[in-house]
Amino acid sequence: MGNSFGEIFRITTWGESHGGGVGVVIDGCPPRIPLSEKDIQPELDRRRPGQSKIVTQRDEGDKVRIVSGTFKGKTLGTPIALLVENTDQRSEAYTEMEAKYRPSHADYTYDAKYGIRAWPGGGRTSARETIGRVAAGAVAKKILKKQFGVDVLACVSQVKHISAEINPDKFTLKQVEANIIRCPHKATAEKMIRLIERVRKQGDSVGGIITGVARGVPAGWGEPVFDRLEADLAKAMLSLPATKAFDIGSGFEGITLQGSEHNDVFQMRGGKVRTVTNRSGGVQGGITNGETIYFRTAFKPTATILQTQDTVSAGGENVKLKARGRHDPCVLPRAVPMVEAMTALVLMDHALRQRAQNGR
Amino acid sequence: MGNSFGEIFRITTWGESHGGGVGVVIDGCPPRIPLSEKDIQPELDRRRPGQSKIVTQRDEGDKVRIVSGTFKGKTLGTPIALLVENTDQRSEAYTEMEAKYRPSHADYTYDAKYGIRAWPGGGRTSARETIGRVAAGAVAKKILKKQFGVDVLACVSQVKHISAEINPDKFTLKQVEANIIRCPHKATAEKMIRLIERVRKQGDSVGGIITGVARGVPAGWGEPVFDRLEADLAKAMLSLPATKAFDIGSGFEGITLQGSEHNDVFQMRGGKVRTVTNRSGGVQGGITNGETIYFRTAFKPTATILQTQDTVSAGGENVKLKARGRHDPCVLPRAVPMVEAMTALVLMDHALRQRAQNGR
Amino acid sequence: MGNSFGEIFRITTWGESHGGGVGVVIDGCPPRIPLSEKDIQPELDRRRPGQSKIVTQRDEGDKVRIVSGTFKGKTLGTPIALLVENTDQRSEAYTEMEAKYRPSHADYTYDAKYGIRAWPGGGRTSARETIGRVAAGAVAKKILKKQFGVDVLACVSQVKHISAEINPDKFTLKQVEANIIRCPHKATAEKMIRLIERVRKQGDSVGGIITGVARGVPAGWGEPVFDRLEADLAKAMLSLPATKAFDIGSGFEGITLQGSEHNDVFQMRGGKVRTVTNRSGGVQGGITNGETIYFRTAFKPTATILQTQDTVSAGGENVKLKARGRHDPCVLPRAVPMVEAMTALVLMDHALRQRAQNGR
Amino acid sequence: MGNSFGEIFRITTWGESHGGGVGVVIDGCPPRIPLSEKDIQPELDRRRPGQSKIVTQRDEGDKVRIVSGTFKGKTLGTPIALLVENTDQRSEAYTEMEAKYRPSHADYTYDAKYGIRAWPGGGRTSARETIGRVAAGAVAKKILKKQFGVDVLACVSQVKHISAEINPDKFTLKQVEANIIRCPHKATAEKMIRLIERVRKQGDSVGGIITGVARGVPAGWGEPVFDRLEADLAKAMLSLPATKAFDIGSGFEGITLQGSEHNDVFQMRGGKVRTVTNRSGGVQGGITNGETIYFRTAFKPTATILQTQDTVSAGGENVKLKARGRHDPCVLPRAVPMVEAMTALVLMDHALRQRAQNGR
Repeated sequence: MGNSFGEIFRITTWGESHGGGVGVVIDGCPPRIPLSEKDIQPELDRRRPGQSKIVTQRDEGDKVRIVSGTFKGKTLGTPIALLVENTDQRSEAYTEMEAKYRPSHADYTYDAKYGIRAWPGGGRTSARETIGRVAAGAVAKKILKKQFGVDVLACVSQVKHISAEINPDKFTLKQVEANIIRCPHKATAEKMIRLIERVRKQGDSVGGIITGVARGVPAGWGEPVFDRLEADLAKAMLSLPATKAFDIGSGFEGITLQGSEHNDVFQMRGGKVRTVTNRSGGVQGGITNGETIYFRTAFKPTATILQTQDTVSAGGENVKLKARGRHDPCVLPRAVPMVEAMTALVLMDHALRQRAQNGR
Repeated sequence: MGNSFGEIFRITTWGESHGGGVGVVIDGCPPRIPLSEKDIQPELDRRRPGQSKIVTQRDEGDKVRIVSGTFKGKTLGTPIALLVENTDQRSEAYTEMEAKYRPSHADYTYDAKYGIRAWPGGGRTSARETIGRVAAGAVAKKILKKQFGVDVLACVSQVKHISAEINPDKFTLKQVEANIIRCPHKATAEKMIRLIERVRKQGDSVGGIITGVARGVPAGWGEPVFDRLEADLAKAMLSLPATKAFDIGSGFEGITLQGSEHNDVFQMRGGKVRTVTNRSGGVQGGITNGETIYFRTAFKPTATILQTQDTVSAGGENVKLKARGRHDPCVLPRAVPMVEAMTALVLMDHALRQRAQNGR
Repeated sequence: MGNSFGEIFRITTWGESHGGGVGVVIDGCPPRIPLSEKDIQPELDRRRPGQSKIVTQRDEGDKVRIVSGTFKGKTLGTPIALLVENTDQRSEAYTEMEAKYRPSHADYTYDAKYGIRAWPGGGRTSARETIGRVAAGAVAKKILKKQFGVDVLACVSQVKHISAEINPDKFTLKQVEANIIRCPHKATAEKMIRLIERVRKQGDSVGGIITGVARGVPAGWGEPVFDRLEADLAKAMLSLPATKAFDIGSGFEGITLQGSEHNDVFQMRGGKVRTVTNRSGGVQGGITNGETIYFRTAFKPTATILQTQDTVSAGGENVKLKARGRHDPCVLPRAVPMVEAMTALVLMDHALRQRAQNGR
Repeated sequence: MGNSFGEIFRITTWGESHGGGVGVVIDGCPPRIPLSEKDIQPELDRRRPGQSKIVTQRDEGDKVRIVSGTFKGKTLGTPIALLVENTDQRSEAYTEMEAKYRPSHADYTYDAKYGIRAWPGGGRTSARETIGRVAAGAVAKKILKKQFGVDVLACVSQVKHISAEINPDKFTLKQVEANIIRCPHKATAEKMIRLIERVRKQGDSVGGIITGVARGVPAGWGEPVFDRLEADLAKAMLSLPATKAFDIGSGFEGITLQGSEHNDVFQMRGGKVRTVTNRSGGVQGGITNGETIYFRTAFKPTATILQTQDTVSAGGENVKLKARGRHDPCVLPRAVPMVEAMTALVLMDHALRQRAQNGR
């Protein structure tokens, strides 16, 4: 259970790290949207391993195939099945993990839950599962842009203690893609990259923060009371591997202000109801107010490290584990397209929910 | 849409601030559980207005009635309908808000979404909606305790800049209930209360942080990949009014550590697989590992303040608004039972999901 | 579980025969629709007991109250809670059924499922549960008529062996309401009524068939592949108490024709794609084609009869049972508004689903 | 939308007749069940075209591949993705249907709904879509048999006017598979086959009835009130292509009896609560009573025939259409495994729902 996301624009992902492949089924996609692999592949390329020196060196092309749901280059309205084969599988690097639980990884909890576990590559817990999300998110991003004028974007804003000031209204995709860490502030990006290289040489790992934004979202998206837009965004982000935190708008820091300082005062601007500040992060009472949506998500340092750690075996003995294999010293650069994808999926679903009930 | 929560133990809340009442329907509750209003009323009393000098003075008894779903004091397995009548309604305090949007409140966004709005008391956006959640949460808490040995608890850990050190494994309900701010650390609680009183006199408001915990949860609850336990908790918390942030375990702060420092090393203890530290917050890969679950949620300062603010009218003019009426200068003490309720609802649902698929 | 129906226009019913009342919550209703109790009460009056000599004499006014979801006579878009109190409860008539299972009733199966049962009046298995459906259906019927130009109607077409020829395109509400059995063919209606009176005097019961129609449904409603319109109608009908069969269009009888005889040939008529015949019943491949939708549902003879029957006790002994109390000798006249309600709920939901994905 | 079925054991099918393939994702499958392609392929072979002289001669091997969800031959509890490639595609036979709507087919309604249609082979409306259902049903059948002792079986009981008497408790898989029409009564089967051969030579088609049974289902499965077992079965059957009717137990015929004749009297037998007759068809009040479940589903004559028919074009002109290509003169023999699959999927889901709420 738990492998589907969205109510109307609904995706279901499947696949393990070392099985036949991974994929996603999208149900509820509007018909007659031009769609080909070329719309999806670039996002998978941003996510794929081996793209730079600071990510895992597993070499997967991650070539996507649209197996159903389009006809002569347009969506049919019926389910879109997207498939990526697994190619560069090396189970042998994981044999030690068959019997030993990696600290802070899901090895133990999967065993506790299911009584069985696909240990090569982490099986379903592998970040390969996010291929389906990124592929579906690419479809959502395209429709959001084309039919609703909405732009979704994310960037790395902090690695360990190195942080960049991000203006949610300003940074561009070009700036993000200008360096391998995907931080739009060039000087900071270089510091982050140096840190990650140093950490990787230690066989260690680091975490950080990704900032996500959505610009151009009209007022009125989001559902009271449980499916508030920020609630669905929070769920979307915390459903990504290695995430530990989410905040939107003023977030945790906003609590140091009093109401009179924190409130986003309204004013008419360009004939529209606008706010002077945007501490709300574009959402009030769960519903968008037309301002830019922005939020942050924290990713912990990668659990799998190449140092010797204490742990226990599946048999219940205290043992030592030194992981081998190809692992990300820092997941953040590859997580940027994941954050964008999940954001787009949340917005796409709420766009259709708004249309269903309110006809616009 | 969006008024239901949970997949198997599923609740649907309804009701506006100034209509006939508010309530909840619980579907999927296990049968033969002893249940009466006495199990639910105490939680509503912790949530109700007028309980102390630092909360709103609206005087509602919030008496709950079980209208269906029990027979001779036991649950039937069929839907449990819980009803609380609205009694102390004073629409006149809100007449100004019929035509003026409160800054950082949902007045404007509801109009943008629905083209209609129940302005007295905020209608559906009122915190009265949470009565249904707290009532349903009381049922979930009871079953979790009785059938699964799980304890759910929350407390105020920060108000504006005043924070208390909270040990997730140690603080008690008795400590929490010992003061009107619901902070288990007595000296800090007194400082918080003095701050809130001062702010209230200014007609202003403050926010803060609530820490939630669940103790005794067995390993194996939570669903990959979208319905991770932390994802559902994040959604649950961000669905509460006025929340802006969520983190679990080491949260945002964890990113300053490297993987080798951050990982929770396993060890056998008392014949069980345990972790030496608990930076994971009791969840690894979306599934519980048997350690205490703990997380934090930030509540912004209450939007409705008694000072004059700039805003716009429904007619599109720049105007001034000075709210009247009875408002919470700080929602935190009343939000503690809400956080507990949502936590219990998430856990209850996952307990039944685990039983469905894995038979235990 | 299982107490909700619909995906977007979604209802949840609750309540037992002899508890505090019965009701329904409607989520996803479009906003700004004029709605008052006057729109709902007439449908409940068609369903209520005691309305004629051929139905149960239980005397319930079944007065409905809108407890939430409207403001100044219009829907808010937030959940509409409808409540009907139970008033004429006489548990004593059911004491014998506490320990004895009525043949072909749900007494035994509820015990087998839940290990507990509200025996007075059948508890949740009572037809009182359908009050919520009929009330919600009244809301759906109004919106279908007002916003989509769709008319939903049903009538009794057969009682035991007495059947009337029904033309799905022609019969009117006035004809249906002209007699107490709700069969639009007057002479046949009189025969049906005489039969039911005779059967009632025997302490026995009869079943029959209700024909339902929807006129004016545009082409394009219904979802492939599992949520075909006819599949959702079949589920809706078979979810009503005492139903055993459903067919649409040519139904079971259509199989005696060959394809060349059975196919509904298309032709242009009035500038529209129309069919010459309508054996499809208005639905092709799960999606409406613009022709009248018509279907039939069979209701078995009421299980509770006033004759002595063999049965077993909850303790596992072979015993005799002679039911007392007030029961319908024939459920059909009261089931007509139930069939209309469920039809309207299915169509309303599909109208919104079509709008969500296809924008019209 | 509408491409998923089930709440806990939930399947999502995808794929068109002439795209890359068809498939299904199963979410919620219990872990540690031995599963390989050998468990699934036999059911697909019963469904596949070209298996005998009375079905379509399209030559598809329909080889299934388990792409995810198993490890070393056992289910993981994570999604099981099953894939069948399309191989024998001949779009040219369908070119005429690009512009002309087949009478009683879904060509027109898909265009009306989506404004686009994959005309080769019927696209998503093709019976190839049922491959995913049959594959998932094979998994469900295996688990039902192995873990719950439940047997699911179906057979052809009528073709046009030729019908066989079927005893729900007695007929065997061996009898069903003994002839190409899948009617367990040999002499009747021969008549049916001769009829179909004659009809096929005419370029015409016939319909009929399939009887489905489930034996060994324990008392207590099924959910009140909307998700009654018979309601979910009705939906399941009416979701199959070409179905027009469903009845369970005494069905439409039961209405000629009075309650005193129709009721299934209880008696203790072998220490269990049993019924003397089984007009209920194994379900009372939506919940199983431990007796054999049996029901009937009517399939209309295949819409696509090789005779000249009047119809209209996509451009809105009255035209003639004479279909070419390879079509089933009678879908019934291939529909038998589909009925079994859908029955198994309904039961599997309800088995897990029962376990979730009631712990057994």
